[in-house]
Amino acid sequence: MRWSEAFIPTLRDDPADAEAVSHKLLVRGGYMRQLMAGVYSMLPLGQRVRAKVMAIIKEEIDSIGGQEFLLPQLHPSTIWEETGRIETMADIIMSFEDSKGGTVILGPTHEEIFATVATELTSYKQLPQLWYHIQTKFRDEARPKSGLLRVREFTMKDSYTFDVDFEGLDLQFDRHLGAYKRIFDRLGMDAVAVRASSGAMGGKESVEFMVRSDVGEDEVAACSSCDYAANLETATSTLAAIEDPGGMSEPERFATPGVRTIADLEVFDGGARSDRQIKTLVYLLDGEPALVLLRGDHALQEQKLADTTQSIEVRAAHAEEINNILGADAGSLGAVAVDGERILADEQLRGRRAMTTGANANDFHLRGVDIERDIAVNEWHELRTVEAGESCPNCDGVLEVFPTIEVGHIFKLGTFYADKLGLSVLDENGTMIPIVMGSYGIGVERNMAASIEANHDEKGIVWPIEIAPYHVVITVVRPDDERSSEVSAAIYDELTAAGVEVLLDDRKERPGVKFTDAELIGIPLRITIGPRGLESGVVEFAERRSGERRDVAIANAASEVLAFLEAAHS
Amino acid sequence: MRWSEAFIPTLRDDPADAEAVSHKLLVRGGYMRQLMAGVYSMLPLGQRVRAKVMAIIKEEIDSIGGQEFLLPQLHPSTIWEETGRIETMADIIMSFEDSKGGTVILGPTHEEIFATVATELTSYKQLPQLWYHIQTKFRDEARPKSGLLRVREFTMKDSYTFDVDFEGLDLQFDRHLGAYKRIFDRLGMDAVAVRASSGAMGGKESVEFMVRSDVGEDEVAACSSCDYAANLETATSTLAAIEDPGGMSEPERFATPGVRTIADLEVFDGGARSDRQIKTLVYLLDGEPALVLLRGDHALQEQKLADTTQSIEVRAAHAEEINNILGADAGSLGAVAVDGERILADEQLRGRRAMTTGANANDFHLRGVDIERDIAVNEWHELRTVEAGESCPNCDGVLEVFPTIEVGHIFKLGTFYADKLGLSVLDENGTMIPIVMGSYGIGVERNMAASIEANHDEKGIVWPIEIAPYHVVITVVRPDDERSSEVSAAIYDELTAAGVEVLLDDRKERPGVKFTDAELIGIPLRITIGPRGLESGVVEFAERRSGERRDVAIANAASEVLAFLEAAHS
Repeated sequence: MRWSEAFIPTLRDDPADAEAVSHKLLVRGGYMRQLMAGVYSMLPLGQRVRAKVMAIIKEEIDSIGGQEFLLPQLHPSTIWEETGRIETMADIIMSFEDSKGGTVILGPTHEEIFATVATELTSYKQLPQLWYHIQTKFRDEARPKSGLLRVREFTMKDSYTFDVDFEGLDLQFDRHLGAYKRIFDRLGMDAVAVRASSGAMGGKESVEFMVRSDVGEDEVAACSSCDYAANLETATSTLAAIEDPGGMSEPERFATPGVRTIADLEVFDGGARSDRQIKTLVYLLDGEPALVLLRGDHALQEQKLADTTQSIEVRAAHAEEINNILGADAGSLGAVAVDGERILADEQLRGRRAMTTGANANDFHLRGVDIERDIAVNEWHELRTVEAGESCPNCDGVLEVFPTIEVGHIFKLGTFYADKLGLSVLDENGTMIPIVMGSYGIGVERNMAASIEANHDEKGIVWPIEIAPYHVVITVVRPDDERSSEVSAAIYDELTAAGVEVLLDDRKERPGVKFTDAELIGIPLRITIGPRGLESGVVEFAERRSGERRDVAIANAASEVLAFLEAAHS
Repeated sequence: MRWSEAFIPTLRDDPADAEAVSHKLLVRGGYMRQLMAGVYSMLPLGQRVRAKVMAIIKEEIDSIGGQEFLLPQLHPSTIWEETGRIETMADIIMSFEDSKGGTVILGPTHEEIFATVATELTSYKQLPQLWYHIQTKFRDEARPKSGLLRVREFTMKDSYTFDVDFEGLDLQFDRHLGAYKRIFDRLGMDAVAVRASSGAMGGKESVEFMVRSDVGEDEVAACSSCDYAANLETATSTLAAIEDPGGMSEPERFATPGVRTIADLEVFDGGARSDRQIKTLVYLLDGEPALVLLRGDHALQEQKLADTTQSIEVRAAHAEEINNILGADAGSLGAVAVDGERILADEQLRGRRAMTTGANANDFHLRGVDIERDIAVNEWHELRTVEAGESCPNCDGVLEVFPTIEVGHIFKLGTFYADKLGLSVLDENGTMIPIVMGSYGIGVERNMAASIEANHDEKGIVWPIEIAPYHVVITVVRPDDERSSEVSAAIYDELTAAGVEVLLDDRKERPGVKFTDAELIGIPLRITIGPRGLESGVVEFAERRSGERRDVAIANAASEVLAFLEAAHS
């Protein structure tokens, strides 16, 4: 392609609203434009990269036995009612009424629809199956941001496995784990597989693939010594046990004028260290109140609360609601002697004595609280948020916590959909058994962006060879020079014939502009052709990633490009 | 792929609601399933064909200089308001309100959005451009039917050209004409390019590509002698002039008790031949009444009426509305002495005298009507529907009229979008000029179906080689026979290594079932491997299209397949 004829609208300035590097570079490099909030147009360079990302994904999923489908984007709402997900995913579902008066959902994911197709499976002999498609998804994100990292319309490869038992599921899950690792590797990313919450997916176990990035919206806790890594939503750690002093026979109420926070009580005369306090939170779980107790220095992890109670809507109670339930305001809350409310306590409080907590009367607290004696805890759960510096749950190492981008998520769904949608087959003995499902998702555009987050420098994008929009850019310093035109055309033709994708920069621009653009859009290899070099019989190779430059004899240019590409691929 | 592991759910019976052959065969062959009205799931075989159709289209559009984009499916309604098409296409647009309160349209086509991207073009130096994408479209068809031929969600390749002038547009239009012809050829269809109405597209000239089919919804008039062909919506013909007798000085009213139709009046004593009558129709054009006059034996072509009057909503008036306007009922209507109404007459009435028409009084007609003397015609237009047997407008030939499937449609849009959306560039002299646009559409799934309509027999589909889901099916007569397994695996491996796509039918089914399935799904070449043939050192080749069978030595099987494929490609 001649640059002079191509539509590559590079810009000098970053878009005003962009924070993520990938967002800035994709817009400045002429890869994409925003159409509206969370909705982007892929320009030719963007589409070339997108197509290559999809091809890599397809190749890897085909290699583990995937059969490609294409299921619709328009879904009848009735199927989503059967699984209940029309409610659990209500906040992001886009839907409308069609001319026939039916409610149509724009598919945010395809478990329901693939499961519906799978109702045609009748015998164990037809299993296992691995089905997938690469299809648009729609999710009405409240705050689309960071360019392609969080959008409302995007492409996803989602695969679905169908097995007779959990062993079969485990095998397909492991194969996906391998395929996904290979995909991220080819996309130039160091993705970590971490344990994650399954959220609204309906499954029990899931693994996310995370790439470290300052603009990531997910936090991961990872061990510096072993391979433990988990989304903060599910991460655990080992804490040193705390020795409590001998307790009192019953809690003692004392005045704490002006004390509103854990920190206030720590410095209050007669108060307590934060790890000797009980923090009492009031939550509404699908509208029903619950008290949530944590050690004073611990923070609640809301996703854990949602997962463990299987709640869809989890929110902190408002001031008025709190007062209605406990008769006191935040700052003086406690669960001692509270009766008739659902009380959930974090495991770290188990067996603790001589604790201090609110007295459910403003400006009063209780000390000497023995949690198992004095509080009617209904349920003990792992509810707190792990913090950096805590000990790994699997070894002696220390946990690090850092922001990441989720680039893939795979789920062991089990029989959730089989149960809801009647997915079953006859086994060897003629008995009806439910089909065991898995689902596996990877976002195409998000991975484009994540790859840039991991592959850029101050000059622009540094594409991994497999997804670069072009392998080589030939920069013609003086397009009006006849000899330059001839040589560049000859090298262009030779490379193109060999299957190399070449962008020929024949624009009537200053060389500096061309160099800057080539670096911005991130083409792995630049060949500069100028009259001075040609006089000496050479052209200049400049590798984008290393920045290395070297002169190459004109006659060897094409073969050296092929050698470079081969080396880059391996 | 081993058939035993593939999901190819063939059926014995046609789906109950299917009329079109392609619909029946795609469902019975396990290519697709309906999810809801006008919305289909592509199963693995269907997706393989779909991907090949898209690849052919991409290849041909790339070959004329196309740059691939991917523009969004979600469009802000504001852009559609600017062009007015939110109204002209209202009947098929699907839309919803998003969480931000904005109206979002599911793109039924992409002129608006490509034009919006093209506002970044600023100089004539950047033109011409040829942009395209292959993207889902949504159209809320009132009566989706015929399987993939008329659906509500489908994939379309739509390209858009941007030029400085109409000469540039003509060039790009001609290139598309050529690319489209090559595409339909490769899809195994004999598509005719015909003149068509541009409908709601906003352009002036358009060409449709039509494939003859009994289930087609468009009718084409084509000359048997020359290459004249046009959609009936725009077709014209040459009619012999009619010599009218000398007229009366003024119309004469006469009683016609019980006469309600043209045919009634033909046989009524004192009536008139249908071609000596004036038919008077009352229409509402965007809500405004108009009288439409035609020769008694001619039928109105509503699309011509819409196009010529640039009306969006065209409908016949109801009985009550007719009576309000003309004071009489259908059957006795006429335009003589009618004042203050918009009167449109078909060109075939020009100069006619001594005609008979309704008197605007039930059971009375007028004879001796001289149309130009007695009727205040405001506008003369070509409004009638051409009929089979009429003379070609371009030669002495006779017109044939037949049903067709529209498989592609290309439009010279001109400056409609430039004017509405402010698309302009500076020309050589620094003057702002509007960008001249064209748009070019081809539906992917409809072309799959149309190809089947043109390529099938009583046993099933007969795929053209380029879009067959697999090139070869190896039917193993006795999968439990060791030698059969060995030979089939060896041939399978050799072919696969050579890039041939092979389906290995190793199912434990009766040979008859396998043969029937292979013919139903339409694989171009079947290799049957059975113990008896192997004893003689041969396998059997059966060509799907010709039905020819011949024995081939085992050792030559792979090379003969390659020869077959090469011959089929050319």
